[in-house]
Amino acid sequence: MNEKKVPFTKEQLEKIIKKYPTPFHIYDEAGIVKNIRRFLKAFSWAPNFREYFAVKATPNPYIMKLLKKEGVGADCSSLAELVLCEKVGLSGESIMFSSNDTPYVEYKKAMELGAIINLDDITHIAYIEENLGKLPETLCFRYNPGSLKEGGNDIIGLPEEAKYGMMHDQIIEAINYCKNHGVKKFGLHTMVVSNELDIKGLIGTARIMFNMAQDIKAKTGIEISFMDLGGGIGVAYKPEDTPVDFEALSAGIRKEYEEILISKGHSPISLAFECGRMVTGPYGYLVATAIHEKNIYKHYIGLDACMANLMRPALYGAYHHITVMGKENAPKDHVYDVTGSLCENNDKFAIDRKLPKIDIGDRIVIHDAGAHGHAMGFNYNGKLRSAELLLHADGSVEQIRRAETLDDLFATLDFSKL
Amino acid sequence: MNEKKVPFTKEQLEKIIKKYPTPFHIYDEAGIVKNIRRFLKAFSWAPNFREYFAVKATPNPYIMKLLKKEGVGADCSSLAELVLCEKVGLSGESIMFSSNDTPYVEYKKAMELGAIINLDDITHIAYIEENLGKLPETLCFRYNPGSLKEGGNDIIGLPEEAKYGMMHDQIIEAINYCKNHGVKKFGLHTMVVSNELDIKGLIGTARIMFNMAQDIKAKTGIEISFMDLGGGIGVAYKPEDTPVDFEALSAGIRKEYEEILISKGHSPISLAFECGRMVTGPYGYLVATAIHEKNIYKHYIGLDACMANLMRPALYGAYHHITVMGKENAPKDHVYDVTGSLCENNDKFAIDRKLPKIDIGDRIVIHDAGAHGHAMGFNYNGKLRSAELLLHADGSVEQIRRAETLDDLFATLDFSKL
Repeated sequence: MNEKKVPFTKEQLEKIIKKYPTPFHIYDEAGIVKNIRRFLKAFSWAPNFREYFAVKATPNPYIMKLLKKEGVGADCSSLAELVLCEKVGLSGESIMFSSNDTPYVEYKKAMELGAIINLDDITHIAYIEENLGKLPETLCFRYNPGSLKEGGNDIIGLPEEAKYGMMHDQIIEAINYCKNHGVKKFGLHTMVVSNELDIKGLIGTARIMFNMAQDIKAKTGIEISFMDLGGGIGVAYKPEDTPVDFEALSAGIRKEYEEILISKGHSPISLAFECGRMVTGPYGYLVATAIHEKNIYKHYIGLDACMANLMRPALYGAYHHITVMGKENAPKDHVYDVTGSLCENNDKFAIDRKLPKIDIGDRIVIHDAGAHGHAMGFNYNGKLRSAELLLHADGSVEQIRRAETLDDLFATLDFSKL
Repeated sequence: MNEKKVPFTKEQLEKIIKKYPTPFHIYDEAGIVKNIRRFLKAFSWAPNFREYFAVKATPNPYIMKLLKKEGVGADCSSLAELVLCEKVGLSGESIMFSSNDTPYVEYKKAMELGAIINLDDITHIAYIEENLGKLPETLCFRYNPGSLKEGGNDIIGLPEEAKYGMMHDQIIEAINYCKNHGVKKFGLHTMVVSNELDIKGLIGTARIMFNMAQDIKAKTGIEISFMDLGGGIGVAYKPEDTPVDFEALSAGIRKEYEEILISKGHSPISLAFECGRMVTGPYGYLVATAIHEKNIYKHYIGLDACMANLMRPALYGAYHHITVMGKENAPKDHVYDVTGSLCENNDKFAIDRKLPKIDIGDRIVIHDAGAHGHAMGFNYNGKLRSAELLLHADGSVEQIRRAETLDDLFATLDFSKL
């Protein structure tokens, strides 16, 4: 049930390329909307359920605006992401500001926007008081459950080795302090898994959080009002992967919620997620053209895209499915390394991948590039970052970020003083 | 003999920071010049010896200009890097254009500048002829020796799994073709090691290349005129590492050169290297400020710099030495993870590093950040890339790249259509 399809025909794509040359990222509005609606519906039982889109995944205001229309807020980790919220018209409790190692100017901006501040560290309470004079009335705390979370996660690692969040006793101490210093509404947050396809891990995180809420109530007398269960819902990058079943995930979390909280007398807690990857990841495609074939010890197809456009394969060895347009049903009887042009040997989109015979000029579509794709691009080797396009539900295409030029690349250089 | 010192005092640095707030990269002109002069002198026996600075390491025209004054050329891998050469006034055989998976516009630009074109693949001969009408009179060929090179290299990997270069028989075929199609001067290039501290590996590469030149002469009647032995000279990142002894390296290569080539009747071959890392790496420093201390399961010091300024520790787990300014002689009796603020748990400049007690406001200098440092920075999480400063030999400081602003970050977005 994870058929890797593209949301356009070869003919449609050629028309798009006539206007916007490859490489580019293209996002499928219909796919994004359908998916987020299903997600929100699955959790409609949860009080004031909210999804905060992790802006870092796809920091494009047009994508944020599209999601805003669906009732989705923003999870921000930096000043730049807060400014994007402002541009899109997001404010107040529609923004969760989850940063770490935070300079005070960023807290200041977050408070100006009325964002929920999610404190990563207990020392940031005094830091905010000193720099900004007071604490906000609503405050959230990031919890690092340490070894309570069984095992680690490939991307996040073991919680006790992660730089994020506060330990159990620090959360208790923080709440005891804050309740006497003007904070009236308390939230709890965690993020201990990333790109997880097994709902057991995601439900387990919720269980830890619900138990923590009960413990906070017992030890401080404070009832947590809202809870951000983090992101971490994975993307089924490989055809054989099974995507997360939102309804099953929701049912599993609901069971824990009712058993641990409601049946034991805790008031309802508003629930939230801060997913990025699963919101846009499967609905974004990097479109490139095959410009080079090379046969040495191995067989290579070179693209006009490179790791500047999508770092995940080079960085993590991540699998991204590839469709050769017009050859969807051709036999996969060739084995290629599909490369970019960086002077980095790991600049390969695929290694030993079985694909149909590729000819120069073929359009190569790299799947699941909609999150942590364009966002992670760099300019190493003088490469330029590509454009982003939005494929609207009506079939029209809008450029939502232009491609970089050499002038952009050199903008911070003053050649006049050379 | 690898004392990790900084080229400024605490007082000097504070003065610099008053004008240029942290974080920034600062390059030590005196160190760069002294080192490159020693390198060029060590190889002064070699005919027309040349160093092509690998621009990708530090693509700053002020650094390129500084090196140009010392007689150093440029090794380019992209259009952007060729344009930087043009701005700096480099042209002709001062430029080696070594790219792979190359679009024809880049060859065109290289030919306009009179650069030496180093062909990565045999198909690029026809590609140049088709697109540009003719072959240049001087042409270089990148050789991939496959399993001839014993063992691999951590960064480059096994040559037979690397996307670069041509196989032995392709080189012979290419030269046989080109000698009948207008090419009059032939070069040979390879790059099979990276960041190598053992001169045996570097000398071994030269031996492979010299033998290849003899084989080319025997099989094609063509004598190679010039040879680029690649880069690959490593940086002694750790205090216990021993830097490469240029004189010993030179002597070792000279012995092979004379035994394999000259004593067997080959005409003198001009030699070149294309080092980047060792030219600027040890003479660049990332200067940051400690803005946060955090004690949970581990002890953290948070900086105002992050992996957007220096990716190597996060990307490769690379060691970069750290000096806490003013505490150079203090006991290293604390153990810290030194982190940036990205929402990526691998955004750590050091893990479990023994350091003096660090206080908020301390200036933290990260060593050996002069190559593949600023160049590899990205804007993930909305982070801005920092400024680059040049510390002149007379102690004055020049800003050679300004820090990015939010306007730079958003330059490719059109908010007016939101």
